[in-house]
Amino acid sequence: RKFAIILWIYLFFLFILFYLFIILLNFVFAVNPCCFYPCQNSGVCVRFDTDQYQCDCTRTGFYGENCTVPEFWTWIRLMLKPSPSAAHYLLTHFHWFWDLLNATFLRDTVMRLVLTSKATLPDPKVLAVRFFRRKKFRPDPQGTNLMFAFMAQHFTHQFFKTNHDVKGGFTKALGHGVDATNIYGQTLERQHQLRLHKDGKLKYQLIDGEMFPPTVSEASVYMKYPEGLPSEQQLAIGHELFGILPGLTLYATLWLREHNRVCDVLRAEHPSWDDEQLFQTTRLIIIGEIIKIIIEEYVQHLSGYFLKLKFDPELLFNERFQYSNRIALEFCQLYHWHPLMPDSFIIDDEEVTYSQFIYNTSLVTHYGVEKLVDSMSRQVAGQIGGGQNSHEVVLKVVEMTIKESRQARIQPFNEYRKKFNLRPYKSFYEFTGEKQTMAKCLEDLYGDIDALEFYLGVMLEKTRHGAIFGESMVEMGAPFSLKGLLGNPLCSPEYWKPSTFGGETGFQVVKSATLQKLVCHNSKWCPYVNFKVPGKEQEANSRKSSTEL
Amino acid sequence: RKFAIILWIYLFFLFILFYLFIILLNFVFAVNPCCFYPCQNSGVCVRFDTDQYQCDCTRTGFYGENCTVPEFWTWIRLMLKPSPSAAHYLLTHFHWFWDLLNATFLRDTVMRLVLTSKATLPDPKVLAVRFFRRKKFRPDPQGTNLMFAFMAQHFTHQFFKTNHDVKGGFTKALGHGVDATNIYGQTLERQHQLRLHKDGKLKYQLIDGEMFPPTVSEASVYMKYPEGLPSEQQLAIGHELFGILPGLTLYATLWLREHNRVCDVLRAEHPSWDDEQLFQTTRLIIIGEIIKIIIEEYVQHLSGYFLKLKFDPELLFNERFQYSNRIALEFCQLYHWHPLMPDSFIIDDEEVTYSQFIYNTSLVTHYGVEKLVDSMSRQVAGQIGGGQNSHEVVLKVVEMTIKESRQARIQPFNEYRKKFNLRPYKSFYEFTGEKQTMAKCLEDLYGDIDALEFYLGVMLEKTRHGAIFGESMVEMGAPFSLKGLLGNPLCSPEYWKPSTFGGETGFQVVKSATLQKLVCHNSKWCPYVNFKVPGKEQEANSRKSSTEL
Repeated sequence: RKFAIILWIYLFFLFILFYLFIILLNFVFAVNPCCFYPCQNSGVCVRFDTDQYQCDCTRTGFYGENCTVPEFWTWIRLMLKPSPSAAHYLLTHFHWFWDLLNATFLRDTVMRLVLTSKATLPDPKVLAVRFFRRKKFRPDPQGTNLMFAFMAQHFTHQFFKTNHDVKGGFTKALGHGVDATNIYGQTLERQHQLRLHKDGKLKYQLIDGEMFPPTVSEASVYMKYPEGLPSEQQLAIGHELFGILPGLTLYATLWLREHNRVCDVLRAEHPSWDDEQLFQTTRLIIIGEIIKIIIEEYVQHLSGYFLKLKFDPELLFNERFQYSNRIALEFCQLYHWHPLMPDSFIIDDEEVTYSQFIYNTSLVTHYGVEKLVDSMSRQVAGQIGGGQNSHEVVLKVVEMTIKESRQARIQPFNEYRKKFNLRPYKSFYEFTGEKQTMAKCLEDLYGDIDALEFYLGVMLEKTRHGAIFGESMVEMGAPFSLKGLLGNPLCSPEYWKPSTFGGETGFQVVKSATLQKLVCHNSKWCPYVNFKVPGKEQEANSRKSSTEL
Repeated sequence: RKFAIILWIYLFFLFILFYLFIILLNFVFAVNPCCFYPCQNSGVCVRFDTDQYQCDCTRTGFYGENCTVPEFWTWIRLMLKPSPSAAHYLLTHFHWFWDLLNATFLRDTVMRLVLTSKATLPDPKVLAVRFFRRKKFRPDPQGTNLMFAFMAQHFTHQFFKTNHDVKGGFTKALGHGVDATNIYGQTLERQHQLRLHKDGKLKYQLIDGEMFPPTVSEASVYMKYPEGLPSEQQLAIGHELFGILPGLTLYATLWLREHNRVCDVLRAEHPSWDDEQLFQTTRLIIIGEIIKIIIEEYVQHLSGYFLKLKFDPELLFNERFQYSNRIALEFCQLYHWHPLMPDSFIIDDEEVTYSQFIYNTSLVTHYGVEKLVDSMSRQVAGQIGGGQNSHEVVLKVVEMTIKESRQARIQPFNEYRKKFNLRPYKSFYEFTGEKQTMAKCLEDLYGDIDALEFYLGVMLEKTRHGAIFGESMVEMGAPFSLKGLLGNPLCSPEYWKPSTFGGETGFQVVKSATLQKLVCHNSKWCPYVNFKVPGKEQEANSRKSSTEL
């Protein structure tokens, strides 16, 4: 009995000591209380004094110190939500109940632990090597091919342009969306260099009678190429980086040909138009085509959520929809889909290694558009989600992405889950699903699932059955993507009409654009062209088993 | 009888000849048929072939070759419009009836005459001298003062930034609205030069204990000053031109002081905030203050149309309102309000001539904010509308404005009247009202009221009784202005809440901002400060009669 009393006294003092220690911590560190993410339901945290905060719950539909108490109509709305969301509500509701039950002291302690573990975030290099480096190529079970992969890269580089001269995720992009600056150049000066200034066309060179981008000696723009490469061998493209990979050069060639083809179509109808009017109208048509192809083929391919997606801006004309867009850094982060890249490239049945591929624009001029499209449409890309599928050559991008997210103080993955109305994960095991080794390893490094970083969250989350990535990538990426596409000025009531595209003919070119037409209107023969490998899931699955053996 | 027959034959041949001549003209000149502005009701004209056009009537509510036939619901809507608009409708309707009645041949002839006369538009110098040059100072009957005039100039220069390197009305402005770049500089580099990088503040210098903009040797930014002026005498301001007129320097000083004052207010509540957070939040508060003052005092003063205007963004939250803005070249054109400028400046009861005023920033530091505000609030500005009220020193601006409008091919005044639902004027006499000499002179130069240019239209139109300008300036300027103010991102549901402004205190600073507070929170004593001269209409009217004698 005496022993028991001593033990109790001992425990009591230990508790007091722990309590004093916490209070001491409060004084010594004076951490920003907003770093605990106290405000729920998209409330905005504002720090006051040194250790106070206020949650701005304006128009969140909630009130209370931490925006956790639903207003009457919010409560009704939440109650009336269909079944899956109702489940969410109960869980959220339970969370709030839990929040209120637990003393501030306890919650702060837990949060402080999260913070403390965050203070020593894992080494990005370690994260890249352990969770991203490919062991064995894992093909995408949806059958995504390299034609898709390079479309993704070509397409997104018109609006993902992080300004690395300024810390904190600033962008150099002006258009904040689909503005085709990857084709026409970001500056007016670059555009004028790339333009032929005749019939609205872009400059080009003919090789064996076929149209390719001009050389830098013909169109004097800065392009990134290996030092010493003579300007006669440098192809000049809207985006300075598009000489790096032949897949990008291929798309540059396709859009160049399409632009010049549409110029001819317009000129036949409008012989009186000058170069400027032909150019500008064609550019609008090209932007329209891009949006059409991206929504109806690219996004549609990506996920069953958008299977029947139709590009019809008129559907939004009666909504309170904002025709504007800002490219969020989070969107840029989650779009680092480098696992798509294969181990090597199979072109015309020959294997091409990375060292033979990079900067080798002659692959495009040598094989021609037809064979390249055919080969890239037939080669499966890597699965994006699930981790451990990034080729060695792109691994440094992972490190860079993680470093960037820390500089910009991007919130943890679970905070974004809440923001996008997804239930935060409770454990690393729930997060990775079957991959328990990965979960264990993540827990060792991060300590708490609430500390897991955003980029790792969207990339390492358990993938859905037979899908290219997990739930979060879709639920967070889709709103960014659709806002960026349909928020384009071209889709607004003011511009979505025939005259914007030079009349009904141009309008029809936009409305009927497809990836196949983009290729086959601009090639000698029509190759296999798709965002999926032939045979789709079947072939993808058989490949999967063969590579995973 | 024989004579009569000969006369008829003669007339018949004359008619045939005239007809052939018109057909010949068609072939020889092949003028763009869109130059006749055939499409009504905001239909968009697209030229096909060499002499064909199509009107795109999409979503105009009208159909038919020239978008003149109202759709059923348009017709109903037009019928149900209240009385003044119903009158408009009858007139429009009558016009349409007239359009259909008249053969294409006749309409084309008339329009060609318009075009022909437009082909030889009057010399801008002649226009400036005859219709703009001030004979005798005509004070604004609304009692607008110089405090208003310089506010107008200071305020609008943040978004009117025509890029004169590119022809055709391009802008250098990025924000396309109220972004306070006139205070903080257009580029990040300039902003950083102007910032103190301490407590969120802007750099300043103290002269006799009072805060003024720093010198260029302290904040190294490009400013336009007379060559040879040592950098220790050049004041550094967000906008490079704001050293030109002491009125602009005065406002620069006021906003500088207000910025630094608000920084102190914020820092008291948020001692933990760093320089960047204090700066950015203060900037948002300043932008909010500007919008508040402009809507509730500046625009309100301008016209009875907006008398009870209240700055409350929440009023729009349930509307299909686009939170975005583009500064139109037409808005920039119509805002050339140089007649506001007086013959000389009365500061502290002393007359200051233009040559003593221009580039003389020492007037600001010498007299101080209080005396300058008092003097400028008491001196009446010139009436903007009605013509012949521009001081010799600003006359070249008129020429420049007219030349710019021609380069950008701005449509004639009457086309804009239609676009803004105003009845086009039928004659120069109707347009100028009592000023018949001016009407005659305009007719001699332009030939037809439909050829009158936009800028001359808004500036020379008969003014309303006792008002600063005519109907068109208000009806065209107001939509541009209100869209630019309320379309600001700060007014959108996402940002219009306390946390955006650092909490309730900052939000209240915005919501309660007035011109008087801007001055009196930042001065030793509170001068007379207003956008109207004291005594308002009374004094203005008595001045009017005395100057018009």
